Amino acid sequence: MRLSELSEKSGVKTATIKYYLREGLLHPGRRITATQADYDERHVRRLRLVRALIQVGRLPVATAREVLSHIDDDSLGRTIRLGAALWSLPHGPDPDEEAPETATARAEVERLLDRIGWATSQEIGSLSPTYRALVSSVATLIRLGYPCDIDYLAEQAGLMHQVAVQDLDMMETHPTESEQVEMAVASAVLYEPLLMSLRRMAQEEESARRYGL
Amino acid sequence: MRLSELSEKSGVKTATIKYYLREGLLHPGRRITATQADYDERHVRRLRLVRALIQVGRLPVATAREVLSHIDDDSLGRTIRLGAALWSLPHGPDPDEEAPETATARAEVERLLDRIGWATSQEIGSLSPTYRALVSSVATLIRLGYPCDIDYLAEQAGLMHQVAVQDLDMMETHPTESEQVEMAVASAVLYEPLLMSLRRMAQEEESARRYGL
Repeated sequence: MRLSELSEKSGVKTATIKYYLREGLLHPGRRITATQADYDERHVRRLRLVRALIQVGRLPVATAREVLSHIDDDSLGRTIRLGAALWSLPHGPDPDEEAPETATARAEVERLLDRIGWATSQEIGSLSPTYRALVSSVATLIRLGYPCDIDYLAEQAGLMHQVAVQDLDMMETHPTESEQVEMAVASAVLYEPLLMSLRRMAQEEESARRYGL
Repeated sequence: MRLSELSEKSGVKTATIKYYLREGLLHPGRRITATQADYDERHVRRLRLVRALIQVGRLPVATAREVLSHIDDDSLGRTIRLGAALWSLPHGPDPDEEAPETATARAEVERLLDRIGWATSQEIGSLSPTYRALVSSVATLIRLGYPCDIDYLAEQAGLMHQVAVQDLDMMETHPTESEQVEMAVASAVLYEPLLMSLRRMAQEEESARRYGL
């Protein structure tokens, strides 16, 4: 399809598409003449993801480009590729290594991962910004004096594993590995706020069941 | 205890405590002399929450004051009080009522709530910023052309309900209703990032199980 058709189909203005092409966020179309190129469904799909990252996730262009480069890198194994794409997304803050509670928090996270048997996360450890963000969240709880009960965290982790199983089942409905990693990234950006709304709503719902309105 | 002891116990500088007192984020202590006041464990607990809201949640002072006023309002029923406190926290954006996909999104959310039997949320509807944020998230999915499968959402909502049951069980370990609502607010600010880290970690873990590293 031509640029104008791609614009119509994706709901993105042609000027914006040209900008994304210049910034390397969108693969160039197949050149037909000196001034025209041909685009296909992969471009429609990629535009959707670029909008999710930039317009909804508010990622800087350079970060979006990095996320997309991992999605396109089919030299990597699937988990590493997924990890690399997710790791390039914005995360919570890194733990403050100067703070006394950080060592305690790291020990708690290790105890949690032992308990729930998440061996991959233990193996990867501090290399992963997700792991570091988790240590940082636990350190904040400890610093402020809030409970960080290992049984509670283990149960919540178990439920998040069930969420992840559904997420991956949903990803597997897409045929190629690139599309699956694309879905995982979109899911992190678009479904996290949705899931947190559902959690707050569920708290109110459960509260009304227990105590009335 | 004196102001200096409250400072030591809470890890908050006396100048900051005085600022919180002036801004009405902390109840005044019991006046002993013209220049001295006596503080107790409730002040320690409240300072913890104020730090969670302002230092971690980065809420503006006026918003934090509003959240706290709902926690302190024991004229309200427990669910309303919890709702009012959670509703004052920052939320996702409101739906764009001009956008054509908003009506579709609202119908999808109603269909979801019907399916999972969340009657309180249906009753409260658009009054709740949580409901509006959910409609807005679904509208974004529709606008970008991402799947918003009702079966998938219903399963995720079911898991979030299990999360909420654990949250409320944890809240109930606190003796008074005020403390329980305090815990709910702290939980929204401090545990949401933690839960999202666990979800991303679980996705990597499940990916490693299915496809290797």
